[in-house]
Amino acid sequence: MESAFTAFGTIGYWNTTLAQIAQDCGVTRAGLLHHFPTKESLLEAVLARRDEVNRDLIFGGQQDPRRDPRDFLGKLIRLVEHNASQPGIVSLFAVLGAEATHPDHPAHAYFAGRYESVRSWISEALRLLEQEGGLLPGSDPTSAAIELTALLDGLQVQWLYRPDAIDMPALFRQRINAQLVVPLDPAELHVTG
Amino acid sequence: MESAFTAFGTIGYWNTTLAQIAQDCGVTRAGLLHHFPTKESLLEAVLARRDEVNRDLIFGGQQDPRRDPRDFLGKLIRLVEHNASQPGIVSLFAVLGAEATHPDHPAHAYFAGRYESVRSWISEALRLLEQEGGLLPGSDPTSAAIELTALLDGLQVQWLYRPDAIDMPALFRQRINAQLVVPLDPAELHVTG
Repeated sequence: MESAFTAFGTIGYWNTTLAQIAQDCGVTRAGLLHHFPTKESLLEAVLARRDEVNRDLIFGGQQDPRRDPRDFLGKLIRLVEHNASQPGIVSLFAVLGAEATHPDHPAHAYFAGRYESVRSWISEALRLLEQEGGLLPGSDPTSAAIELTALLDGLQVQWLYRPDAIDMPALFRQRINAQLVVPLDPAELHVTG
Repeated sequence: MESAFTAFGTIGYWNTTLAQIAQDCGVTRAGLLHHFPTKESLLEAVLARRDEVNRDLIFGGQQDPRRDPRDFLGKLIRLVEHNASQPGIVSLFAVLGAEATHPDHPAHAYFAGRYESVRSWISEALRLLEQEGGLLPGSDPTSAAIELTALLDGLQVQWLYRPDAIDMPALFRQRINAQLVVPLDPAELHVTG
């Protein structure tokens, strides 16, 4: 899985071969095929594993923004903080997410669905905050969710080029806080749900 | 050039072969090699051509934000409007920009430099507006430039998945206008420098 991670995240899905991955992790091609009969199945396993890790590590097993929208936004920032120590994973998602806009890409449905989910989680959280009077006027939950999702993606690419110059978590937190009546307290970000 | 555009923009640089491009445009491999001896040289030509087209079409031959910062920001929005009719080019830049974070990628220096330039143009424009009193308080030109650049990239990827749901130019204009004392007038966007 780690070899697949690295290969997909550097040279992309299309150019990765199962033969190369088998060699990288010191098994025979037949041995690899026993576990992952196709490259698609290996990609799906890599993506599913990453989602599982994030859900458990950051969201404590659930990602429902309706439980506590401020807590949810705080955890999103924690996810960005976590990503800032994982250039390989960030690169994997940047390359695959861009490649997979093509409808023939085997991860197309995965990424299309992922963007819908991320946008709807964020807009749901902002809409709840709006109802509670916690959102500053002028913020529209739907377009803010598209923007915050775009900011996440775009900051990651710039950060991969200049990790020294781009402070992803700080910029992301700043953009979220600019929309809240009561900004997220840095301490709040480390409270687990 | 068009075949190279399409190939780089869908399957990425690494997986594109000169043999395939030669076949797509109906020339022999030797014929193609006569003009572009390596895949790197073809990539460089594609990127340079795109910059040239943008500079002429959008910026009227110059991209200096110091001449008129509001005009410069208006032209950036026009560039996004123009891109919204060019999914192939947007896909090319999304895929290559993500692939090329890897230092071994032949377009690494190109994209690293491009991000520096885009950020410095935008921050220069915002800094001039700040000096003229045209920027709302709370906007920092340096971080706003990183954010706007990230927004451009991130909106493009979401738009490639859902062109019907993501209005790139409107969201980009909204984010710029949220920082200006006098928002850009839509009419202003069509005045050529």
